[in-house]
Amino acid sequence: MGTTQLESVQEPKYWHLKTVLSEALDSDFAVGEILPNERDLAARFGVARATLRQALEQLELEGRLQRRRGVGTTVAPPRVGVAVSTGQRDWSGGAAGEAWQPVGCSTAVAPASVATELGVDGDEPVHIVRRIRVAQAQTIAAEQLYVPSSSVPGLSSIDASSGPVRARSVLRELHRLGLDGQDRSVELGSARADDAKELDRLPGAPVLVVTTRYLAAGGTVALSVATYRADTCRLTFGDSGDLEISHHGQERQAS
Amino acid sequence: MGTTQLESVQEPKYWHLKTVLSEALDSDFAVGEILPNERDLAARFGVARATLRQALEQLELEGRLQRRRGVGTTVAPPRVGVAVSTGQRDWSGGAAGEAWQPVGCSTAVAPASVATELGVDGDEPVHIVRRIRVAQAQTIAAEQLYVPSSSVPGLSSIDASSGPVRARSVLRELHRLGLDGQDRSVELGSARADDAKELDRLPGAPVLVVTTRYLAAGGTVALSVATYRADTCRLTFGDSGDLEISHHGQERQAS
Repeated sequence: MGTTQLESVQEPKYWHLKTVLSEALDSDFAVGEILPNERDLAARFGVARATLRQALEQLELEGRLQRRRGVGTTVAPPRVGVAVSTGQRDWSGGAAGEAWQPVGCSTAVAPASVATELGVDGDEPVHIVRRIRVAQAQTIAAEQLYVPSSSVPGLSSIDASSGPVRARSVLRELHRLGLDGQDRSVELGSARADDAKELDRLPGAPVLVVTTRYLAAGGTVALSVATYRADTCRLTFGDSGDLEISHHGQERQAS
Repeated sequence: MGTTQLESVQEPKYWHLKTVLSEALDSDFAVGEILPNERDLAARFGVARATLRQALEQLELEGRLQRRRGVGTTVAPPRVGVAVSTGQRDWSGGAAGEAWQPVGCSTAVAPASVATELGVDGDEPVHIVRRIRVAQAQTIAAEQLYVPSSSVPGLSSIDASSGPVRARSVLRELHRLGLDGQDRSVELGSARADDAKELDRLPGAPVLVVTTRYLAAGGTVALSVATYRADTCRLTFGDSGDLEISHHGQERQAS
């Protein structure tokens, strides 16, 4: 166990190449540097173009490389550590410096699984607040926050019916609720078209989907589905709300 | 925002097919059912084989489909919710019913990034406990737990020098340490050959990598790198150690 070389495991050729390339990235290339073209790289490592391409795709998946239109393949910076604090009450309305920025709000029927979680009828419209999270001038996450009308009874109907102003009103009302707690799950997903656009990715790009249930009065008062770029983000969880330390010397995000 | 149809987003053809297929899986197929072959499916949906294959790969990535050698493509059961508790002290030695089962132990030099985290010299060997986590008769995660000698000063040198017995001795010694806390990160990775073998996946398969630092006396006393199958696992995090509730009606694992 633990010593790959001794295992008689089926290991594809591109996988070995990936390891070799990864070491070359560490030793011979700087962050942001543009890689030689595929033809030259394949020649340098003595492999077929198809094998090289598979290895490059793997390294992109792992966040070591970035493919940028019009630039080429560059060496990616280390993944950004993003605090997903369990203590945090992150909907106070989007003042400067806060993690999440509201960008819109609509009222629509939620997906069936969301409606079930929220305990609303499948055809009952809910408020859908749309927020993005920005770090280092890049959008790293896009979120849909589903809020049943019953959770925000004080919401004024005089407000704008959509847009960031409406989003802030919903968040303000939510903020007034005392929360009993929240729980989260993290799973692998692929970016939907609208999220992909926010994240500057193609639809289908791998993302980390963080689903958060906000609990109060014995039920779920809001449900957040947040989509983080899997290529650039490492999600961090602390033991308590304020014990979050970055790993591997990577930069920590203010949250 | 939020209404995919209205966005003028570049959406590949396979992506639309994926959505259609996903709905067909919900309505026309049962969990475990074998899908028709690619030729028939492509004909049924009026698409090219290449497009179909991309859509199937996407659905496999999302855990909706499973490809099994000698069986074909089947409809996957819902993802298993796996509790990754922040309160848990999960190294009490692998008694029956516990989440993690020790399978081996070695003493070797840790990867450079791990050595840095642990504050040991790059050439100083550490104990590497290897554990697996089993749920529903399937190995869902494989772990390397790195423990510097200084964290387990009471470890007897008379013990076996490797194997599960040694692993339990190291875990027992760790258990005696009072922990101040732990923190975690979650990121997308790809399975290394040895982990892939444990997980019954091919090397390079997408995995969720959970890195946990165990903190005591102002430092990191142990570092765990656990690799979860991304196709079948949804990681759940509670607000406190015991507030973990599964989502979407999916089964919750005992931890």
